[in-house]
Amino acid sequence: MNKNSPTLDEIFSPRGVAVVGVSATGRGFANGVLASLIAAGFPAIYPINPRYQEVMGMRCYPSLQSVPGVIDHVVVSIPAESALSLLDDCAAKGVKSVHFFTAGFSESGLKERAELEKTMLEKAHAGGFRIVGPNCIGLFVPRSKLVNTIGVPIEPGPIAFISQSGGHASNLPIYGSPRGLRFSKVVSYGNGLDIGECELLEYFAQDPETEIIAAYIEGVRNGRRFVNALRTASARKPVVIYKGGTTEAGKRAAHGHTASLTSSVAVFEALCHQMNVIRVDDLDEMVDVLVALHFARPLPAGTGTAVIGAGGGPSVLASDELEKAGLQVPALSKATQSELLQFLPLAGSILINPIDAGNLATPEAITATMRVVSRVPDVVILLYHLGFHPISSWGGGRFASPAFLEPTVDAMDAVRKTTGKIVVLALRPPLNLNDMKDFLAAQDAFARAGLPVFHSLRQAGKALAHVIAWQKRRG
Amino acid sequence: MNKNSPTLDEIFSPRGVAVVGVSATGRGFANGVLASLIAAGFPAIYPINPRYQEVMGMRCYPSLQSVPGVIDHVVVSIPAESALSLLDDCAAKGVKSVHFFTAGFSESGLKERAELEKTMLEKAHAGGFRIVGPNCIGLFVPRSKLVNTIGVPIEPGPIAFISQSGGHASNLPIYGSPRGLRFSKVVSYGNGLDIGECELLEYFAQDPETEIIAAYIEGVRNGRRFVNALRTASARKPVVIYKGGTTEAGKRAAHGHTASLTSSVAVFEALCHQMNVIRVDDLDEMVDVLVALHFARPLPAGTGTAVIGAGGGPSVLASDELEKAGLQVPALSKATQSELLQFLPLAGSILINPIDAGNLATPEAITATMRVVSRVPDVVILLYHLGFHPISSWGGGRFASPAFLEPTVDAMDAVRKTTGKIVVLALRPPLNLNDMKDFLAAQDAFARAGLPVFHSLRQAGKALAHVIAWQKRRG
Repeated sequence: MNKNSPTLDEIFSPRGVAVVGVSATGRGFANGVLASLIAAGFPAIYPINPRYQEVMGMRCYPSLQSVPGVIDHVVVSIPAESALSLLDDCAAKGVKSVHFFTAGFSESGLKERAELEKTMLEKAHAGGFRIVGPNCIGLFVPRSKLVNTIGVPIEPGPIAFISQSGGHASNLPIYGSPRGLRFSKVVSYGNGLDIGECELLEYFAQDPETEIIAAYIEGVRNGRRFVNALRTASARKPVVIYKGGTTEAGKRAAHGHTASLTSSVAVFEALCHQMNVIRVDDLDEMVDVLVALHFARPLPAGTGTAVIGAGGGPSVLASDELEKAGLQVPALSKATQSELLQFLPLAGSILINPIDAGNLATPEAITATMRVVSRVPDVVILLYHLGFHPISSWGGGRFASPAFLEPTVDAMDAVRKTTGKIVVLALRPPLNLNDMKDFLAAQDAFARAGLPVFHSLRQAGKALAHVIAWQKRRG
Repeated sequence: MNKNSPTLDEIFSPRGVAVVGVSATGRGFANGVLASLIAAGFPAIYPINPRYQEVMGMRCYPSLQSVPGVIDHVVVSIPAESALSLLDDCAAKGVKSVHFFTAGFSESGLKERAELEKTMLEKAHAGGFRIVGPNCIGLFVPRSKLVNTIGVPIEPGPIAFISQSGGHASNLPIYGSPRGLRFSKVVSYGNGLDIGECELLEYFAQDPETEIIAAYIEGVRNGRRFVNALRTASARKPVVIYKGGTTEAGKRAAHGHTASLTSSVAVFEALCHQMNVIRVDDLDEMVDVLVALHFARPLPAGTGTAVIGAGGGPSVLASDELEKAGLQVPALSKATQSELLQFLPLAGSILINPIDAGNLATPEAITATMRVVSRVPDVVILLYHLGFHPISSWGGGRFASPAFLEPTVDAMDAVRKTTGKIVVLALRPPLNLNDMKDFLAAQDAFARAGLPVFHSLRQAGKALAHVIAWQKRRG
């Protein structure tokens, strides 16, 4: 970067985008980006390939120079061998940033490819533009309609995600979207030749559009700068990190993936603890923690949880899972149990907490139960669990019907607002089409109401325990 | 039980079944059983309720006595208060077994209900029949078409499942069926008033239809008999146990659920270790271990795993997850990597193991890769991983097409047979309808070919590590 290089703010707001390496087959990354930009309504898109006049219904240009309009950002999916001449074109056109999906650079382990990267960086410095990648899927900025994957949520939100992996960069928004996660910016930076994890952390620490910072990191290049950036960021905003390459085989994979030299796990763990950074073990746990941070409002001040739902086996599992995760499931007093017996049956019920009764599948019984247990001082979290599988239909498939969903969502929202307790859902996804329809309808209804939805009791417990510990250390 | 009581073999082969407590609404457990028996084609079903002449299109009888045919097994879903008079009717009719779905007995904590249970047992002894439950979903015996839940696989198989929870007893077959699990007998025994875990373990240890024994247990009544039964069973067959109630809250829940007094977790763990019993933490892990035991044939003799699939991030995750689970992901030699480079691209690939390349989504590339790595002596397990989500369609939705599935399944089957290595699939389930269709088609195709399918790399790793350790201890 030189002093005339554009800022990240400028790079995240391009006026025109060129996509180099589109094909007529409709397949491949470049065409996926093109389709995503069209679907998102990005205003000025320029497909580039000298072999075609038209691609996906759009005029295709032979080169960057032949495009009449402004090009700020270039998406590149052509062989590494053509990288240097393309960068000369970029300099001539006066672009601000070039994103290389193209791989086969330093991560290949070939010395000449590492040299090639160095020359690319020199050209970027000289040309006054920045490089994203190579070997990544680049930028996703909903506010700018700059999109790189079909299926990601284009409504902006408060979460920034920095990812060394392109797969994770597309999967986190896709996995998190149905549960209400929305993003300010997602940056997949791959080999991090120019823009890397430190600069991005520094940026997101002060970015007013970002309230929560998530990162997938395989290796860190500049330890001291990273520690400083992490300290600043985590002092201002919750930071959640998934570190890849924590075993010998994982380190080897990370080196082959993004040329990363991963540091010691113990050092990384200690650093996260010291900085009050939430460390997760995979992408699913990252989604869970982001859902908890964003939707479990106000963040729970304690760990006391009332577990509500039908099923004895699941209730035993719930208790075991939540206590193992670090939450508490306090026993209810005889007086509270008597209150519950006014509308829950004795036969087949467990009332001591967990609370299991056959009729805990009607809005009335769920709401009445939540109101009773919300008066227990030790109880901070009200967790309702529900499985979606064929035996759910014993009750006539009621869980996804408007007659169940609408009053249940409204009632849970009212309980949350009037009692100040956290209402949480654990909905178990089914693996068949009929129940999946019901599950998706229920998940959507709860998520739209801003209620945190998890896919298992274990996942709910782990995520809530993470944010409770984070808040406690924060003081 | 007295010496004239029927054997479990007789109980598992009833000639006629009465369902007491059916309703005209079509809802509730009794109607669910009725519908399941009809769907399975059980030959002699008698709905009982004096209020109706017909239920679900079948003639409904006012009492057991009014049924002209033989009744061997009675399914009961009427209030606990009516239990004793019903048992008198059962004795008069000469039935062999009575299953009480009805709850509200000793698990309610009420002294008079515990007394009621004792009187029920006396009546069973006097009447020469056995009681299943109360507070459970009873018997599922595919060979006899004796079914208690819609959605379970009615084709018989080698797995017996003993479950103190009715929910788990229906969910294990439902969860396991699409992955190929088939059952000899599933017995949900609830409060275990008469038939309990010890008698069932003893039975399944010698049952010729059962090759693998699975159990969900909350508490054990007769410790010495249980230890002996477990020793005998595990000496003959693999035994997998999921123990519920391992935390304080879980123990409390188990006591309220099935009146179980759970033992110390440490004692149970030590016992399982000593007996070489595989202990799992939840029902999903139980399905995984059963899939590994049944389909990872021959059981892997070592832990060396080649990880094959597209995606850098997922490959790093794969390595970390598998090594944490106890498998090894050995680095491939330069020579082997050169062989792979003959058909895998350099750019964007990781070849050292994990093996990640963009074209590892075609049958040809997958098969060629498997053949090369199967020649590495350290590699025993060939694991192919695949995510189902919107970006899979970059390649044109090929994963679920016959053009992908048929040759891939055939090729993996051939690799397995010709190399003697274990071929394993990790297919990540999607949470949207379109990809779910593709996922289900793929899972079905692999499972039908007898290939073990897991739903995550972590789950595959944990289950395989369990069975490898089991086999090693077994010697």
